[in-house]
Amino acid sequence: MGDALYGLIEAGGTKFVLGIARGKDDIIATTRLPTLNPTDTLGAVVEWFSLQVQIHGPLTAIGIGSFGPLELDPASPDWGHITRTPKQGWANTDLVGPLRRAFNCPVAIDTDVNGAALAEYRWGAAQGQRVAVYLTIGTGIGGGVMVDGKLLHGLSHPEMGHMRLPRHPLDTNFEGICPYHGDCLEGVASGPAIKARWGKSLSELPADHPAHDIIAWYLAQIVSTLQAIFEPGRIIFGGGVMGTPGMIDRVKTCATSLGKDYYVGAPADIITLPALGDQAGLLGALALAENLAG
Amino acid sequence: MGDALYGLIEAGGTKFVLGIARGKDDIIATTRLPTLNPTDTLGAVVEWFSLQVQIHGPLTAIGIGSFGPLELDPASPDWGHITRTPKQGWANTDLVGPLRRAFNCPVAIDTDVNGAALAEYRWGAAQGQRVAVYLTIGTGIGGGVMVDGKLLHGLSHPEMGHMRLPRHPLDTNFEGICPYHGDCLEGVASGPAIKARWGKSLSELPADHPAHDIIAWYLAQIVSTLQAIFEPGRIIFGGGVMGTPGMIDRVKTCATSLGKDYYVGAPADIITLPALGDQAGLLGALALAENLAG
Repeated sequence: MGDALYGLIEAGGTKFVLGIARGKDDIIATTRLPTLNPTDTLGAVVEWFSLQVQIHGPLTAIGIGSFGPLELDPASPDWGHITRTPKQGWANTDLVGPLRRAFNCPVAIDTDVNGAALAEYRWGAAQGQRVAVYLTIGTGIGGGVMVDGKLLHGLSHPEMGHMRLPRHPLDTNFEGICPYHGDCLEGVASGPAIKARWGKSLSELPADHPAHDIIAWYLAQIVSTLQAIFEPGRIIFGGGVMGTPGMIDRVKTCATSLGKDYYVGAPADIITLPALGDQAGLLGALALAENLAG
Repeated sequence: MGDALYGLIEAGGTKFVLGIARGKDDIIATTRLPTLNPTDTLGAVVEWFSLQVQIHGPLTAIGIGSFGPLELDPASPDWGHITRTPKQGWANTDLVGPLRRAFNCPVAIDTDVNGAALAEYRWGAAQGQRVAVYLTIGTGIGGGVMVDGKLLHGLSHPEMGHMRLPRHPLDTNFEGICPYHGDCLEGVASGPAIKARWGKSLSELPADHPAHDIIAWYLAQIVSTLQAIFEPGRIIFGGGVMGTPGMIDRVKTCATSLGKDYYVGAPADIITLPALGDQAGLLGALALAENLAG
């Protein structure tokens, strides 16, 4: 184990972050590449890792936490592909194949939010929890769930941004921006949904603007639904919208009021920001790679 | 295993159903008792099983699928108790203790809906599914989830009746009947919520009454939320409301329209009635008892 060398990839819609590490506290090198077209970007990824291998030796495994949706059925010939993303040029892109061919090592892949959920479970805010939910509220909304030490997968990975939720009484005229579902969670509470209504991000709006309470109210509805389904020990809220000063406390207050002490977990106790912060992406990739190496 | 003898208890708010079995296809005897006060009812339960033991020999294990909420934390001194039920006299009732003392065998307990979810996974509509959700839509609404062959538990068992959901545009004046959360799922779509609005059950209302589509619409919202979270291979709908002619097909149609083909699982494929029907309660208790015996 001490000699294992992991390749880490955080594959995002605007940038790829790469790393090479021997463990959580031994990240040897990192770099950042813009997300261009698949051929150029994946070519640059292979080139960077090839250089690292020349210096540090062969890779034990590679972990990828990626934007999606992804095909994660190991029985599918398209396993490891991005599937139907609206991101130009990236639909049906094989992320895993070029890496496996170049470095002849096992490759683990999951969504970026599943990677973050796993990393928060292993090293962060979800340690020791039987069930923990990780949500990111940003340009998009996504989530992952750890259940009994494993990432939850059904027929596919979660798409938690598309949960249904009630409409705030002061927000009923807004149709929502999700191209599929209109006023699903992502359609009403993501960064672009906030700008579509109020022209600015929450951080740019005054602290007494009603947008703050409306968004906190939506996130509190989701907390209650997740408590009804999972009774999670932690609900971790990451992403740009949660960087708004005071937002996490508004969500706790609103979820407490909504839940009426019905659940075992008190919202003030279970709701938290990520413990791993900016590192969650790369550490997610590391956790996925380590899982693979056993 | 061939000689194992299981005691089965389906503990409901109006009746207790008891059984004794050597396996799913070998249920030896069953009986039914009214749910009175805990002392009389549990006394009668012990009496009936004592008689069976005299005839058939000692019990290998007892399985209980019960109404709740239940304390299921094995580390709690109140494990196996009904906790804060509004049912008169039953709050803080120890269901397990009297049985363990009388029969000196291991006792497994979980919610009735978790038992049904486990039984449907083992013998019914959820066989082979990585994730399957069982919902009962009746006097109350409850649910259980099988994940990778195990029942989902967080800090407690699920309370899926209290999920949040959008309000149907033709139903916005109804406040909902949940004493805790008003217009949560149970507050708007349970049997009593239907009677509170329209004075009758769905089966008693004409087939073209708008109530049918309103309730189907609510259940379809829940299907979409469950798909966003779990991508389950099956969502099994049991309970009295689902006995309304045509209801399951209305839910499938509405969920298909709402999901916009976004999920891998097509609602028409994944939504189903229980395969075990009336037997789900006792078979749930059997599945819980068999789990315990390994």
